[in-house]
Amino acid sequence: MSTKKRRGRTKLADRKPVWELDKLLRRVRELREQLAKRRERLGKLPPNVMVVEELPAEEVHRRIHEVARQLYMQIEETGRPVFEIPARTSDNIIYDEDHDMLLLGQKRIRRVFHSLASVADATRTIRILEIIHELIEEGIHATKREIFYNDVKLFKEQRFSDNVIEDIAAMLGTTRNSTHVVAAAKGAAIGRLVIRDSGDVIDLTKLGSGGWAITPFLDQVEILESDAELVLVVEKDAALIRLAEAKYWNKLPCIIITGKGSADIATRAFLRKLVKELKIPAFALVDSDPYGHYIFSVYLRGSKKLSYESPFLATPEIKLLGVLSKDLDEFKIPKEVRLPMTKADIERTEQLLKEPFVQRNKKWVRDLELMLERKEKAEIQALASHGFKYLTDQYLPVKIETGDWI
Amino acid sequence: MSTKKRRGRTKLADRKPVWELDKLLRRVRELREQLAKRRERLGKLPPNVMVVEELPAEEVHRRIHEVARQLYMQIEETGRPVFEIPARTSDNIIYDEDHDMLLLGQKRIRRVFHSLASVADATRTIRILEIIHELIEEGIHATKREIFYNDVKLFKEQRFSDNVIEDIAAMLGTTRNSTHVVAAAKGAAIGRLVIRDSGDVIDLTKLGSGGWAITPFLDQVEILESDAELVLVVEKDAALIRLAEAKYWNKLPCIIITGKGSADIATRAFLRKLVKELKIPAFALVDSDPYGHYIFSVYLRGSKKLSYESPFLATPEIKLLGVLSKDLDEFKIPKEVRLPMTKADIERTEQLLKEPFVQRNKKWVRDLELMLERKEKAEIQALASHGFKYLTDQYLPVKIETGDWI
Repeated sequence: MSTKKRRGRTKLADRKPVWELDKLLRRVRELREQLAKRRERLGKLPPNVMVVEELPAEEVHRRIHEVARQLYMQIEETGRPVFEIPARTSDNIIYDEDHDMLLLGQKRIRRVFHSLASVADATRTIRILEIIHELIEEGIHATKREIFYNDVKLFKEQRFSDNVIEDIAAMLGTTRNSTHVVAAAKGAAIGRLVIRDSGDVIDLTKLGSGGWAITPFLDQVEILESDAELVLVVEKDAALIRLAEAKYWNKLPCIIITGKGSADIATRAFLRKLVKELKIPAFALVDSDPYGHYIFSVYLRGSKKLSYESPFLATPEIKLLGVLSKDLDEFKIPKEVRLPMTKADIERTEQLLKEPFVQRNKKWVRDLELMLERKEKAEIQALASHGFKYLTDQYLPVKIETGDWI
Repeated sequence: MSTKKRRGRTKLADRKPVWELDKLLRRVRELREQLAKRRERLGKLPPNVMVVEELPAEEVHRRIHEVARQLYMQIEETGRPVFEIPARTSDNIIYDEDHDMLLLGQKRIRRVFHSLASVADATRTIRILEIIHELIEEGIHATKREIFYNDVKLFKEQRFSDNVIEDIAAMLGTTRNSTHVVAAAKGAAIGRLVIRDSGDVIDLTKLGSGGWAITPFLDQVEILESDAELVLVVEKDAALIRLAEAKYWNKLPCIIITGKGSADIATRAFLRKLVKELKIPAFALVDSDPYGHYIFSVYLRGSKKLSYESPFLATPEIKLLGVLSKDLDEFKIPKEVRLPMTKADIERTEQLLKEPFVQRNKKWVRDLELMLERKEKAEIQALASHGFKYLTDQYLPVKIETGDWI
């Protein structure tokens, strides 16, 4: 008995996409309403987590002065100045099931100047506060590496200055971006969106096939307008090439972004900004392997390392559109383009299955279990085995039309 | 006796940049004239090399039909069809000293259908000709990986299809880009340049701080206008961030591009297009280590692997502005931010010193020898040890003003 008969329905590979935009978008709009209701129901973050806000430069400046003032008062009053810094250790990281996000608890560490163990860290903390103060006053941004080089004698190794940079952002209750410390960004965006970046108005449908290189200075980016109904997040540049060439946003009103592999902070923050401000759903298109699922999960919930910033980097509304393990059969991906999973792949899949944010999503569990059962993986480009336009003209419309996502 | 006294002149670190644009640009314009004279003197490529041209789609289409017609005639006449393909083996690669480029000789390999050894390759060649024909007719582009996935049964491994793709471009006497087979691009460009890309007019001064993501479809890109006097090619995104933030093109009329590490084909081809069409010099800013020098060399002369395309990917006019080994002392880069060279670094430097294109440039040899003598390297960001704006306000203007490049 064939799989087809057993399932009692046509395989998605054989389904003719309707390509009537209204029908296709009905599913997207349903999801949009569901997400809106969920947002209403959710409301605020729980009270026991660290509240971190994106802040304008003036407010960061004010808070640095406040920290300095308190430090000065402590010196005058007790002679024993101390920094209170939110702990970023794993025992202070909370998985918030309702918000589907990793968050930071209220545990704090004390960094004192009168102990031999912490005096170096305390001095570094003051120095970096001073550097951030300079960045804010000068209205410029710097990378972590530049900050390290700014005072190598004091910082000794970059991991020490990096650590203090994260501490200070957490201490000021703001995102690292708001402290003007940025990371190089490698993502790109294209499609139905008009933004203002450092004063320039940019229409992302009018950038040819190259797209807009996502800037790390997201504090200077403003979303002006968009009639997009969804965001397509693609793992790989190759998929962006395919979609940009087809000017896919003319067919399906969308914004397309890629992190070019594992997404950097700016790309994740930009996706979150789009979804939050435009109130539209986002769909991820990644390789059908544990790494692709992991890349999706980082967009979805943030990464452990940067938990205190999670609410500003995670997009809990994002759905995994594909390529799912079940899609390999559904879309008749030939056996020759499926690759055997390695031992590391299998371990990574088992690891993902242990994560609480995976376990509460039954569809996701089923797909990863199927992957483990088959021990097969495939890249997005494997869809090209049905022709170069299969991705744009069959796979994506059918997946969206049938609401077939996780 | 201090180095300063011995040299009998002020260190560049102490030199106040004039920042009078005309004085600063005098050097750039002198170089521009030198390069123009060199171009006139050079004229055509030598006759014993493979002539490869960028071609419009219609011409590639015509040549594919011509190959098919000849194949058909051979079958009719002799029953023994054969492909004649330019050899891309190292004994057919020529270093052209005058043009400072790697080129392909006229040695050819024959791929016949009636030998067991080559029938699989001949069949693959026909299949890829057919795929390229389809791409051209449909007006779309594809990546090597997608082409591999298009017929995995026949190609077996991607290296086989990749190899045939290069063969066919060489056989048709054109660049791989002209066959609509493209590679993912990671570079970005920003500054005084207006282009047309797939019909859209894009002003690269009006893209905020993010820049334009260089498209792999360079056959669709047209340079419309520019009043830039030079191109700055920076190895790293972090340096682009620094320059984009300062809107450096307003201070110095330039176009800034980055390959974000080792440059991909599209970034190199785009640089070449800029320099060739605008007839302005290009300056590279890379890390002061053998890898940085290697990245510069790939812009300068191409890489061995893609030699037949070298004339379309190499920019022999590019100069190495820095960071030179001698700059570390000249600009008083503190000892703490200089890193010891590893054994691999030293070997790589020795390797570079053996290359003919290095040996004929005395300044380059001296700088690499100094690097070996000191056994020290440093990143571009090490300049931040003098402050975040040191790169833009001291290092770059002084280097250009004093004509201090290789």
